[in-house]
Amino acid sequence: MTFRGVLVPVLTPFSPDLKPDGEKFVALCRHLLDQGAAGLAIFGTTSEANSLGAPERIALLDMLLEAGIPADKLLPGTGACSVTEATALTAHATARGCNGVLLLPPFYYKGVSDDGIYGFIDTVIQEVGSEYTKIYLYHIPPMAQVGFSVDLVGRLHGDHPDTVVGLKDSSGDWSNTSALLDTYPDMAIFPGSEVFLLDALRKGGAGCITATGNVNLPMIKALFDHWQDDDADERQATITAVRKVFQDAAPMVPLLKAYYAHVTGDADWAVVRPPLVGVDGSIAATVAEGLPALGFTFEAPA
Amino acid sequence: MTFRGVLVPVLTPFSPDLKPDGEKFVALCRHLLDQGAAGLAIFGTTSEANSLGAPERIALLDMLLEAGIPADKLLPGTGACSVTEATALTAHATARGCNGVLLLPPFYYKGVSDDGIYGFIDTVIQEVGSEYTKIYLYHIPPMAQVGFSVDLVGRLHGDHPDTVVGLKDSSGDWSNTSALLDTYPDMAIFPGSEVFLLDALRKGGAGCITATGNVNLPMIKALFDHWQDDDADERQATITAVRKVFQDAAPMVPLLKAYYAHVTGDADWAVVRPPLVGVDGSIAATVAEGLPALGFTFEAPA
Repeated sequence: MTFRGVLVPVLTPFSPDLKPDGEKFVALCRHLLDQGAAGLAIFGTTSEANSLGAPERIALLDMLLEAGIPADKLLPGTGACSVTEATALTAHATARGCNGVLLLPPFYYKGVSDDGIYGFIDTVIQEVGSEYTKIYLYHIPPMAQVGFSVDLVGRLHGDHPDTVVGLKDSSGDWSNTSALLDTYPDMAIFPGSEVFLLDALRKGGAGCITATGNVNLPMIKALFDHWQDDDADERQATITAVRKVFQDAAPMVPLLKAYYAHVTGDADWAVVRPPLVGVDGSIAATVAEGLPALGFTFEAPA
Repeated sequence: MTFRGVLVPVLTPFSPDLKPDGEKFVALCRHLLDQGAAGLAIFGTTSEANSLGAPERIALLDMLLEAGIPADKLLPGTGACSVTEATALTAHATARGCNGVLLLPPFYYKGVSDDGIYGFIDTVIQEVGSEYTKIYLYHIPPMAQVGFSVDLVGRLHGDHPDTVVGLKDSSGDWSNTSALLDTYPDMAIFPGSEVFLLDALRKGGAGCITATGNVNLPMIKALFDHWQDDDADERQATITAVRKVFQDAAPMVPLLKAYYAHVTGDADWAVVRPPLVGVDGSIAATVAEGLPALGFTFEAPA
């Protein structure tokens, strides 16, 4: 079964000396599942995954599983610039029973051809060599620059229909998401923002995978659960407005962390790894003040 | 002593199953030193370093040292998106006595501030914590997108004058290299192409670090050795013409490897890791035909 619903690219908490805080990470993952996350897209862009070394990602995934987070709820990011590292991470996640992996294209070399990206993903699949590997392509040109064209998605899915089963589209370009939904109705396609959730569901989309799920999962999930109800457009307008409050205030990842620090009173939450830079607590406070007017209530993790 | 002269970002040979070929790598490194390379910038962009996992880079560096390549000739690339991996690679290279490391900025997150990049490099320096670490900043915006601004170079060099000692400028923008040479006369500044070698030397540059050093080191080094002679401009024109032959024919890294395959008769030389794609041998043959007219003779490694 492919994922369906609202997935969250879980924030990675760090201690002040920049080490991942496993206990806090487990607690957040548990909390998001309790709130109804269909899956946890750990080690995404929002998770600062590319600021973690491969051994750190492996250790954190193992820690979640040992803490009892179910593997079938996990969609870890396993992308890397090197086919060796992407293979090792994908093999590990597959061996541990994760229900899928979110795979970036190799993103160092620019101007590479679709053939080159195809070769990379194909090599990962061959090297992992498991029928249990389920790959969700991670298209995020604003960060990776390198992306999966609509044609390339078709080649990969066509040649590996049981392995390349889905895609997260963080292009922010609805026309691209729409083309993917039209062209590959049998893939699980997720826009990378709840702003496109209702539009995507109306075209057969599988849900969304969104950074703001870290703070606003209940309202986003409510739209997913009621997207055919009369008030769906109204729900969409509200969650779009909430997202806009976060999006307009500061860079998303440090802001979400500063917001967690503000509402929980735990200053360590604000720690980001360089090259990201922390956001001032006063900005988080202003964001927090503006949200209740939108019917937003924050539920903190235990 | 900082590096001075012509350094080569050494090609990384792979076997047909995409594993690094350590023996061939050692032979090429030895050959380039015999030809007069001032240093070996292993694990650069030309080396497909970002297509190697961190453990592969560590193993290849150890292999070179065990084969007797002198550590003081080595300038390994130790950049990575994560501060953990960049720290581990830099610490390893420092511990093994390398005369410096070439450090990319973190290159996944785009639109990051100078403060964020400063924080990354500063954290690497603090975590490695060795007075023997010598960092050459690696500015290559065409690939990394994220770069070191002239101001940021000054902050890093100013705060760590004995550690941040040099820079490779692969921007391809002479005005940037020129500004760096004017502003930081006590740093070892290397343009990333021999096209700017004479101009750089005339402004106090330290030499160049160039991909085509893999094939044309003798002619490039001859200009370095004779840059104050009457025929320097003529030498510059010739090596620029040779570079142009390579540059205009196909993407540089696969072409250099296809050229090696062509001239040595060893087809494995042409193997690149995805996302790069191999170049057809006929293109390498055409390149090879055009070079003798420029006075170019290829010397193959043993």
